[in-house]
Amino acid sequence: MLQDDEAQHLTRVLRIEAGATIRVFDGRGREFEAVVETAGKAEVRIVVGVRRVAPAREARIAVTLAQAVLKGDKMDHAVRDAVMMGAAAIQPVVAIRSEVTLASLQRRRSQERWQRIAVSSAKQCGRAVVPSVLEPLEFDEVVGVGPIGSAFMLVEPHAAEKVMPLAALPAEMPDEASIFTGPEGGWTPEEIDHAAAVAHLVTLGTRTFRADAMAVVALSAFFTLWKEF
Amino acid sequence: MLQDDEAQHLTRVLRIEAGATIRVFDGRGREFEAVVETAGKAEVRIVVGVRRVAPAREARIAVTLAQAVLKGDKMDHAVRDAVMMGAAAIQPVVAIRSEVTLASLQRRRSQERWQRIAVSSAKQCGRAVVPSVLEPLEFDEVVGVGPIGSAFMLVEPHAAEKVMPLAALPAEMPDEASIFTGPEGGWTPEEIDHAAAVAHLVTLGTRTFRADAMAVVALSAFFTLWKEF
Repeated sequence: MLQDDEAQHLTRVLRIEAGATIRVFDGRGREFEAVVETAGKAEVRIVVGVRRVAPAREARIAVTLAQAVLKGDKMDHAVRDAVMMGAAAIQPVVAIRSEVTLASLQRRRSQERWQRIAVSSAKQCGRAVVPSVLEPLEFDEVVGVGPIGSAFMLVEPHAAEKVMPLAALPAEMPDEASIFTGPEGGWTPEEIDHAAAVAHLVTLGTRTFRADAMAVVALSAFFTLWKEF
Repeated sequence: MLQDDEAQHLTRVLRIEAGATIRVFDGRGREFEAVVETAGKAEVRIVVGVRRVAPAREARIAVTLAQAVLKGDKMDHAVRDAVMMGAAAIQPVVAIRSEVTLASLQRRRSQERWQRIAVSSAKQCGRAVVPSVLEPLEFDEVVGVGPIGSAFMLVEPHAAEKVMPLAALPAEMPDEASIFTGPEGGWTPEEIDHAAAVAHLVTLGTRTFRADAMAVVALSAFFTLWKEF
C-alpha cells in the first residue's frame, strides 16, 4: 500500500489508474514489477509481483559527496544531481562561507527534505538504491573524524601549493572515496589547509564553475578518471 | 561606452559606480582593466586601460557541442553550462524529438537569445572568449554536412550494436571534436543509425541523466578523458 506523497505522485502527477503495471523498489537495490489494484487520492493498493527487473547498475566505487551547503534551492539541485550521477552518499557540510548554521538546518528539517529529494531523483534516473543524505556536520568535524575512503577536495588552481590538476591523479580506482565540493564563495584558506592533511587538493583549471554545478562536474570527471563511465 | 543591457547589468545588478575598476573583454580572448567614468542607467562610460589581465585559459581542444534543442529554459541552461565547461561553439540541433521547428526558433529569435546567454555565462566563469551559438539546423543537415572534427554521440547502452563505453575510447585528444547530446526523449533509432556513419556512439552507462544536465556531464567526461582537466 502506498500512501500520501507516493500515492499522490502516482495518481495526480503520473495519472496512474487501477490495472496499470508499475515498478517498485526497496531502496536497497531490488526492483520489482507491481500491478495497481486500486488508485485513490490518499491511498494506492498495489500487488507486488515476483518478477525482478534490472535497475541501473550501481557504480563500482562508493563515492560520498561532501557538499558544502549551498543557498536556497541550489543545495536541492546539488543533492538531486549527485544522486543522478551515482554518488553512494551525500554528506552536507557547513562550511565557513555556507552562510548557514547547523541549528537552522535542523530547524528547517533540511536533512529530511534532501533525503526526499534523493528518493525522487533515484526514481527519475532509474537507480534502485537511494543514497543516504547524512546528518549535516561542520567542516572541521567531517575532516576531523576523517573522510570515508580516499579524499579529494576541489579547489582553485592557486589555492595552495600542493594543488594538482585532475590529470595528475592516479587513474586507479580506490574502494571508496569522498569528494569535497565548496560553497558559493569557495573554501577558505584555513579550510583548505585543514583538508590538505587528509585529502588531495585537486583543480579543474582556471575557469570558474558555478557552485551548484560542481557536484555534476566533479562526479563526471572522477568517474571518467576511474573508468567507471 | 556601454549601453542598454550591459549598462543596466553594471549599474543595477552589480551596483557599479563611477571610479570603480572593472574588467572588459573583447570576446576574442583579450581582457583589460577599465575604470568607470560615469555610470547612468542607460549608459556607462569607461576608460579602458592598457593593462591586460589574464582570463581563464581556453581549453586546448575546440569542442562544438551539438545540443538537441530542449524545451523552454532547459536549452538556456544547456547553453549557459556548455560555455562554463569550456565549449568552443554550440550547434543547436533540431532533433526529431525536440518538439520544435526551425521556423519557430527563427520567429522567437532563439539563436540571438542563446548568444546573449553565452556572453553572460562567459563573463560569469571568467572566459574572455565567447563561444558562438551557431544557426540552429535540422539533425540530418548537421550530420550530412559532416560534424566538425572527431564526432561523438551520447546514447543509451543498448541503443545500437556499436555503442562503446567512454572508457573504451582512445585517450588521445583530437584537434577538434563535436559532441552530440540528445533531446528529452533521446535520439530516435534512425538518428542514431544516421550518426553512426560519422560519429562514435558512446554511452555513460545505464543511469538515466536529465537531458539538460547532459552537456555538463559529457563535457566534463570528455575533458577528463583528454586530460584537459
